Amino acid sequence: MTQLDTLYSQLTLPTTAKLALIVMDGVGDIATKDTEFLTPLEAAATPNMDQLSHEAIQGRMTPVAPGITPGSGPGHLALFGYDPVETQVGRGVIEALGLGIELKPGDVAARANFCSLDDSGLVTDRRAGRIETEVCERLCDILASKIKRVGSAEVMIQAGKGHRFVVIFRGAGLEGPILDTDPQREGLPIAKAIPADASSKKAQKAADLINAFYEVALPLLKDEQPANGFLMRGIAHQPDIPTFQERYRLKPACLAVYPMYKGLAQLVGMTKIEGPQTIGEQFNRYLELYDDYDFFFIHYKYTDMYGEDGNFEAKKKAIEELDEALPILLQKRPDVLAITGDHSTPCPMKGHSWHPQPVLLSSAFSGSDKLDRFTETGANLGSLGVFEAKFLMRHMQAHARMFDKYGA
Amino acid sequence: MTQLDTLYSQLTLPTTAKLALIVMDGVGDIATKDTEFLTPLEAAATPNMDQLSHEAIQGRMTPVAPGITPGSGPGHLALFGYDPVETQVGRGVIEALGLGIELKPGDVAARANFCSLDDSGLVTDRRAGRIETEVCERLCDILASKIKRVGSAEVMIQAGKGHRFVVIFRGAGLEGPILDTDPQREGLPIAKAIPADASSKKAQKAADLINAFYEVALPLLKDEQPANGFLMRGIAHQPDIPTFQERYRLKPACLAVYPMYKGLAQLVGMTKIEGPQTIGEQFNRYLELYDDYDFFFIHYKYTDMYGEDGNFEAKKKAIEELDEALPILLQKRPDVLAITGDHSTPCPMKGHSWHPQPVLLSSAFSGSDKLDRFTETGANLGSLGVFEAKFLMRHMQAHARMFDKYGA
Repeated sequence: MTQLDTLYSQLTLPTTAKLALIVMDGVGDIATKDTEFLTPLEAAATPNMDQLSHEAIQGRMTPVAPGITPGSGPGHLALFGYDPVETQVGRGVIEALGLGIELKPGDVAARANFCSLDDSGLVTDRRAGRIETEVCERLCDILASKIKRVGSAEVMIQAGKGHRFVVIFRGAGLEGPILDTDPQREGLPIAKAIPADASSKKAQKAADLINAFYEVALPLLKDEQPANGFLMRGIAHQPDIPTFQERYRLKPACLAVYPMYKGLAQLVGMTKIEGPQTIGEQFNRYLELYDDYDFFFIHYKYTDMYGEDGNFEAKKKAIEELDEALPILLQKRPDVLAITGDHSTPCPMKGHSWHPQPVLLSSAFSGSDKLDRFTETGANLGSLGVFEAKFLMRHMQAHARMFDKYGA
Repeated sequence: MTQLDTLYSQLTLPTTAKLALIVMDGVGDIATKDTEFLTPLEAAATPNMDQLSHEAIQGRMTPVAPGITPGSGPGHLALFGYDPVETQVGRGVIEALGLGIELKPGDVAARANFCSLDDSGLVTDRRAGRIETEVCERLCDILASKIKRVGSAEVMIQAGKGHRFVVIFRGAGLEGPILDTDPQREGLPIAKAIPADASSKKAQKAADLINAFYEVALPLLKDEQPANGFLMRGIAHQPDIPTFQERYRLKPACLAVYPMYKGLAQLVGMTKIEGPQTIGEQFNRYLELYDDYDFFFIHYKYTDMYGEDGNFEAKKKAIEELDEALPILLQKRPDVLAITGDHSTPCPMKGHSWHPQPVLLSSAFSGSDKLDRFTETGANLGSLGVFEAKFLMRHMQAHARMFDKYGA
């Protein structure tokens, strides 16, 4: 814990306030000539957010550090107030979370995919001809039914899409990262699992388990075609990080639709609320649970999805749909409301980017930046300035009056 | 010293420039519906600051870190360029400074207050029925006249308001923090003084002195009613920090009216100028002392005072009064002039807050942000952006041409 984290912790007071964080995934965008220099947020009709912005402040958030484009993992860890550089979560863990697997601290998770091997064990196709999901599921069932444990560890296997699956090793004294068994090109054998840090005994133990897993798993696949082998990547353990509730003295609920975001919320100990499928249903569920939790993480996927597609109109419409549903949430207006993204997903880039996402923060103590709308260009003029996303939680806590005065 | 501090130090050149820092305590505010979305700074008529702003740049300063509300101590340490998280000054020290006591590095200071004890020594009233200041002064006189030393340390006792007083222990090899002797609730005995860090021999020595002080002091009060005991809190030593002059190669003068701010200036080695009681007198004194010092810290209390009262009109008027006096200072215009606060004290909150305070900086090298006024909303648009208050001194030094080029 840094000296500053210690200070925040010492100053933290209990609260009866309700805090809500609405994440329009990938909402940030860039203004280009092709769209008359408007972003989707600027082009969208957002009467409810416009109204909010009169009693709110704005700014832009650097998701990780200047120029760094985050995946969903670091993007959300920062929003949850964890330093996304210090708190690294391996891709195997993210993948497992994305499949809805309930990981525990210390679990070692690997992204895996089926591959094709020749008679001498050399990789001939790293993706096994991109087999269908149904084939993948059948093969995973074979492995899972025959292999429950390896050495001292429990093994869990879960099929993903196409040739992809995930393997979890649960046991005492394990840790990652382990170097990929994927040799990265055809014509080479599957690489042995070895620890990234040769001096880590826990990682050596995990690597030994993975190699032992190969010993029992490969014979089970030997008559399959084309998927008679598999490669593992991003092998890492779930870090043991302080829970959201420990860190902020707030009891958090996650209202997300997609497994990845539920998984990330679970990583920091949020309670996953199952059921709602639309943003209207999510907001309604917030109303129902208002008394039961202090903090609500409400995740909206479609802004990112259409940004990835480069579909400006659809991204704009997704923003309008969220705005239209906002009055449901405002029936019980949270004491502190933040609306932002976990990063930008500019339509012209068809992918995540490093551009700081806009953020709006409204509370009885926010005052007003006197901006008529919530947009990227407006956020540039706000009193929050450009700040690191990991401080958003601290801003929200301050607006909930959760910090005692520092010093006399 | 951090790597960056070392660099600043290496680059620092001597200067003949004059620098002035005007601190309108707690000047920052928030715009709410109740005041037609104007802050006191926005509502005030400030023709002189308006004029200045044409040849100035603006920005906003995070007093400590996002969301943290500073007391006057951390707020001013940051303005003086010291990291307010690393340089922690205990409440006993701040209290002593506030009473105008001249502390030396290593002095251990405690906030104390009279309490009532029953026959078995249990606390029956932690504030001794909130005795009058005159009673407090009489009791402090009794203690001070009888106790000049305890063990190897000199003891100083100074009455405050009501039941409050301060005790200073001056001797070699002492340090804080020491845990409170206040048991926090009635029905318990006075707690023994023990070091916060059990491994600190210096703190153990200080704790022993405090316990020895109790041994001699309590018998002197035994026949008093209701104040026959006392409790101590915030027991800490004055940190030995590099002086302002060592750090910046500037000879500093403090033009403050209230003891707390004189004390904070003295903590970093500024010369306290006694006498002036109004901002006009402070500015006149600046003119008289112009040749004798390089740096002038000019403190104005009333913006904070009326902010604490929630009195918008009075805070606005206090700003207008400072603005009206400004031409006095401008008779000998400092080469570098900064106007800001040590934090915000928004009227709607009736207290200090975390909202970044606006800052205006004018020099021959500032250029202009082309803003017509100095306000919170204007400052959002300035070229200084939102930055940590501890860097204001470095900006001022730069504008005084005090830094050599870094690298070829």
